Amino acid sequence: MTEPTRLYRDSDGRLVAETRFRARFCETDQMGIVHHAAYITWFEVGRSAFTRAIGYPYSEMEANGLSLAVAEVHARYHRPARYDDEVLVLTCLTEFPSRGMSFAYEIRRAADHAVLVTGSSKHISIDHQGRVVRIGDAIRDRIVGAAREQLGTG
Amino acid sequence: MTEPTRLYRDSDGRLVAETRFRARFCETDQMGIVHHAAYITWFEVGRSAFTRAIGYPYSEMEANGLSLAVAEVHARYHRPARYDDEVLVLTCLTEFPSRGMSFAYEIRRAADHAVLVTGSSKHISIDHQGRVVRIGDAIRDRIVGAAREQLGTG
Amino acid sequence: MTEPTRLYRDSDGRLVAETRFRARFCETDQMGIVHHAAYITWFEVGRSAFTRAIGYPYSEMEANGLSLAVAEVHARYHRPARYDDEVLVLTCLTEFPSRGMSFAYEIRRAADHAVLVTGSSKHISIDHQGRVVRIGDAIRDRIVGAAREQLGTG
Amino acid sequence: MTEPTRLYRDSDGRLVAETRFRARFCETDQMGIVHHAAYITWFEVGRSAFTRAIGYPYSEMEANGLSLAVAEVHARYHRPARYDDEVLVLTCLTEFPSRGMSFAYEIRRAADHAVLVTGSSKHISIDHQGRVVRIGDAIRDRIVGAAREQLGTG
Repeated sequence: MTEPTRLYRDSDGRLVAETRFRARFCETDQMGIVHHAAYITWFEVGRSAFTRAIGYPYSEMEANGLSLAVAEVHARYHRPARYDDEVLVLTCLTEFPSRGMSFAYEIRRAADHAVLVTGSSKHISIDHQGRVVRIGDAIRDRIVGAAREQLGTG
Repeated sequence: MTEPTRLYRDSDGRLVAETRFRARFCETDQMGIVHHAAYITWFEVGRSAFTRAIGYPYSEMEANGLSLAVAEVHARYHRPARYDDEVLVLTCLTEFPSRGMSFAYEIRRAADHAVLVTGSSKHISIDHQGRVVRIGDAIRDRIVGAAREQLGTG
Repeated sequence: MTEPTRLYRDSDGRLVAETRFRARFCETDQMGIVHHAAYITWFEVGRSAFTRAIGYPYSEMEANGLSLAVAEVHARYHRPARYDDEVLVLTCLTEFPSRGMSFAYEIRRAADHAVLVTGSSKHISIDHQGRVVRIGDAIRDRIVGAAREQLGTG
Repeated sequence: MTEPTRLYRDSDGRLVAETRFRARFCETDQMGIVHHAAYITWFEVGRSAFTRAIGYPYSEMEANGLSLAVAEVHARYHRPARYDDEVLVLTCLTEFPSRGMSFAYEIRRAADHAVLVTGSSKHISIDHQGRVVRIGDAIRDRIVGAAREQLGTG
């Protein structure tokens, strides 16, 4: 399958994974718009797309014993998405300390690129027992390297 | 806490767990009613309430190594629930073969007992490796016994 | 955007819309697999894709005053989907009476086409006041015609 | 029904609505804990409980033509809730400007009152056409008055 995700550097040099899909009917609420909690799950879709795009999918990270527990999430709602709207989720890795990762997000309407929701999330790296752990150099190098390689700027 | 669940035998002698709660805003969709998939999760709330009411919570069953994988689900929609409606979920154990359980459900509006949704689900007993297993006599006796004892008809 | 949906006639001559996407992390449960209620929302994604593929999106149907209330849903679970699995949802219009529509679904794993979930749903056509209405000839012709034209068999 | 919500002033004099319920199975994810987006919907349950507890349910507010669009949400995750855990959602109205409301939340485990999640949300008052509107004095007085009366401190 052609992934509906593309990876690029934005004008500030930040690595961005942009993934696109349509708002689902079940994601709307009785106000006739997408429910505010749905965007939090779209941020997660963005993170998944980001890790897949750089060549190290989160599913593989988990198989290697590393999970990213969510420590904090923030969202600001600018304009609503509606059922069947095609949206873009833009995801950036903003911090990569020894024991976690932080991401920033922009959700845009594909039709006119209007900004719908912006946000961020902070994650702690834990093992399968739930203990906070350092992200090993092997994994770190792989993420950093994958991003570099993927963009052909190694 | 006083559980919002009561256990009784209905006029047909069937053991019923009745639990009550309110429809959540996030469960509505743009038609202004509770989304049809939400009732499937309410059936599950009903099963949880049933097992808790008979004194053998599903969480304990899982801790004892037994899970109930969903094999089939059916729902018929009669009238919609709306945001903030108080609803009753009535749950019955309808079959208890050696390797599973089946349940029947009725979702009613608390205000007038109008039937909103009826349905059923069929489950297969599996272990933590996902293999189909017989429900051990110890667990079976406990469920049957719990139901009997709980109702004081032992 | 290239829609991730294709429309074709299967070997039985039935019109099938096949749409593909990945299972989301938030759709999993503590059994490590996609929660059974999530597939019900995937059926809905399949319906949306079907109507879009035949050239008459459900969003447009709703804008024209016609909604499809869910009257019944049935699902049979064969194998679980897991986080990040790419899945195919195959959707067929199976009945098209004067006051509704019925659909059948197959959810398959894209990697090996293994059948994960099969199911069906039955819908009643209602207006914005929630009254059951006949699907007008204009709309009916358009759906039937759209399907025919889309497949170039007009 | 006895509402599972109580209203009281905390030691800082803030009006708190405390509502309790159990974590649902469908709210867990494959990490074995409640998914982080579920708490955002619990905040909403808390807001609903708050408005009901002060005698002016949000459903009535909407019927009177006033909706509260979510402008911002923030959550900090301290400890996970698990399936079937009984939780308390504590909700406070923290700001009540002319065109909106802000709320703060604490989600605690009922068993030991451990803080699981804290957060806040900011809302804009809109009419049914989605236009930002002043919250009329009648409604404002009613909310303020309801809170006062409910607590018998009028």
